[in-house]
Amino acid sequence: MSEHITLSPDEVRALSYRILTHHGLSEAHARVIAEVITQGQRDECHSHGVYRLLGCVRSVREGKIDPRAEPSLRHISPAVLEVDAHYGYSLLGFHTGLPLLAEKARKQGIAAMVIKRCFHFSALWPEVEALADCGLVGLAMNPSHSWVAPAGGRHPVFGTNPLAFAWPRPGGHPFVFDFATSAIARGDIELHARQGKPIPEHWAIDADGEPTTDARAALQGAMRTFGGHKGSALAAMIELLAGALIGDLTSVESMAFDEGVGATPCHGELVLAFDPKVFLGPGYQAGLERAEGLFAGMARDGARLPSQRRFEARARSLEHGVQIPRELLEEIRRLL
Amino acid sequence: MSEHITLSPDEVRALSYRILTHHGLSEAHARVIAEVITQGQRDECHSHGVYRLLGCVRSVREGKIDPRAEPSLRHISPAVLEVDAHYGYSLLGFHTGLPLLAEKARKQGIAAMVIKRCFHFSALWPEVEALADCGLVGLAMNPSHSWVAPAGGRHPVFGTNPLAFAWPRPGGHPFVFDFATSAIARGDIELHARQGKPIPEHWAIDADGEPTTDARAALQGAMRTFGGHKGSALAAMIELLAGALIGDLTSVESMAFDEGVGATPCHGELVLAFDPKVFLGPGYQAGLERAEGLFAGMARDGARLPSQRRFEARARSLEHGVQIPRELLEEIRRLL
Repeated sequence: MSEHITLSPDEVRALSYRILTHHGLSEAHARVIAEVITQGQRDECHSHGVYRLLGCVRSVREGKIDPRAEPSLRHISPAVLEVDAHYGYSLLGFHTGLPLLAEKARKQGIAAMVIKRCFHFSALWPEVEALADCGLVGLAMNPSHSWVAPAGGRHPVFGTNPLAFAWPRPGGHPFVFDFATSAIARGDIELHARQGKPIPEHWAIDADGEPTTDARAALQGAMRTFGGHKGSALAAMIELLAGALIGDLTSVESMAFDEGVGATPCHGELVLAFDPKVFLGPGYQAGLERAEGLFAGMARDGARLPSQRRFEARARSLEHGVQIPRELLEEIRRLL
Repeated sequence: MSEHITLSPDEVRALSYRILTHHGLSEAHARVIAEVITQGQRDECHSHGVYRLLGCVRSVREGKIDPRAEPSLRHISPAVLEVDAHYGYSLLGFHTGLPLLAEKARKQGIAAMVIKRCFHFSALWPEVEALADCGLVGLAMNPSHSWVAPAGGRHPVFGTNPLAFAWPRPGGHPFVFDFATSAIARGDIELHARQGKPIPEHWAIDADGEPTTDARAALQGAMRTFGGHKGSALAAMIELLAGALIGDLTSVESMAFDEGVGATPCHGELVLAFDPKVFLGPGYQAGLERAEGLFAGMARDGARLPSQRRFEARARSLEHGVQIPRELLEEIRRLL
């Protein structure tokens, strides 16, 4: 008996939608979440695929998230849009605001979308990719829960604070990256703790602030940022731009707001969009060609561009379907 | 005989201004450059202090830089300003555009200033600090010369591509960082090469793409980015946002434009400004207090905030004057 079941992306989407609506999410929320789960599974980002359904249903049951919240929009200025997610998941807020963000960027060249009071759902790459699909350059960031110590500190202050960027490449996949400013994902440390395996020294510190290779001690202490004081500075910038600047929670505040429930973090998000057509005017084509020259230089020695592995997985999945561990799929189907 | 001479910041400014105008810079260029050299010396960023006068005079003699170029402004949109530096130094372009950038940010909440065809002069922190002095949040970046290999690559593609950020703290120094996305400054590798000292393995690769501890081999090869593939992704973003998006040179193109002369890099720069008063409205004070809470958390264990050492040096210099090595000062005075 195969340990994996093959499903088509359409089957993943339909199954996800059924489970989400079954557990009380509104059709609008269920549609965008099912889509991003399908995208995660399709791109073989397994932690962002159907596995997420388990956490999503658990988080809704915990009662902090409003599964039927309808986002509302407010124009702060011709270049800034605010989306209030009203304590629903972030994705519907993003998709509700996206057409207006794109319109602002096309008029102004640069525009910002603030999403407030949302529960974090997915990775940020689906969002910046959606901007690139509109021909725009996208930059997105958010705080999370305070698990990460600043450079030189002993206590957690920052979240894993992801930063995602996309550059449109007409006729091809965009140039996309999406990384946590923590040295590693928290889930990786949890996995090592479960398996009793040591972790590399640069991942975390223990409760006394000392570097540790003991995954359990790391979970009692704090994760570290990537890249030393530079990564720490970036993590702080994300707390400021996607927390203090937009009037929403920092990672420390988001952790306090959770009250130990362990739900997905509640916070805000900042999304910036740039329209190269406005910036470049008649030099638009030349600007895109210049970017292609950069990508060719980066790939010259056979190096992969960021996200390239994901795009290769996408091509495989669209042709052959996605592989889901039988046990996981059974657990998910029991949610119905 | 003391090896250092003490000068007041005013004396540094006056000396710098005399030397710059003596070597053909217009009064407008000389004024802003003398100011930023004084700031560098005052903050004990020695490579950005009076030492820069030597390179500045050399670069002007090489003939690529127009020492009297007058920047021109173009409104691309209500939120985007373009400054053409006409192959002069970047700083005058920045200061010519700054009041209009601030005005756009105050109206729109977010605004961008593109500086094109400029020769890089200084660190970026004086620029983002100038934005913070206007009560704005600043973010600035630029490519440089292609000295840095992308993650997985063997050849230089990126510049040292600095990223600088400032958050205003009314009544105090702003929160500021300014870091190269390369693992280290190129000057540090040159210094190790001159002294015959080995370099850490994560700084650079040799001409065959292998990590090296030999500083001379590193100078023939390529520097590495900080933070592995994440730092590499950031460096690429800076090439795109402050090169391709604004219709100016990437670091590879800037290196080619130099034609082996070894002048300071010619390229563009992107400066973003955010007005917290627009984003936060009536929540402005609460937003600033939230940021202060973040800074207190970061400093809780005695850790220094980025730039804190610079601010401590500033206080010392303003009280006691700046120390300049006698030999360097004599070399500089011989320029008159």
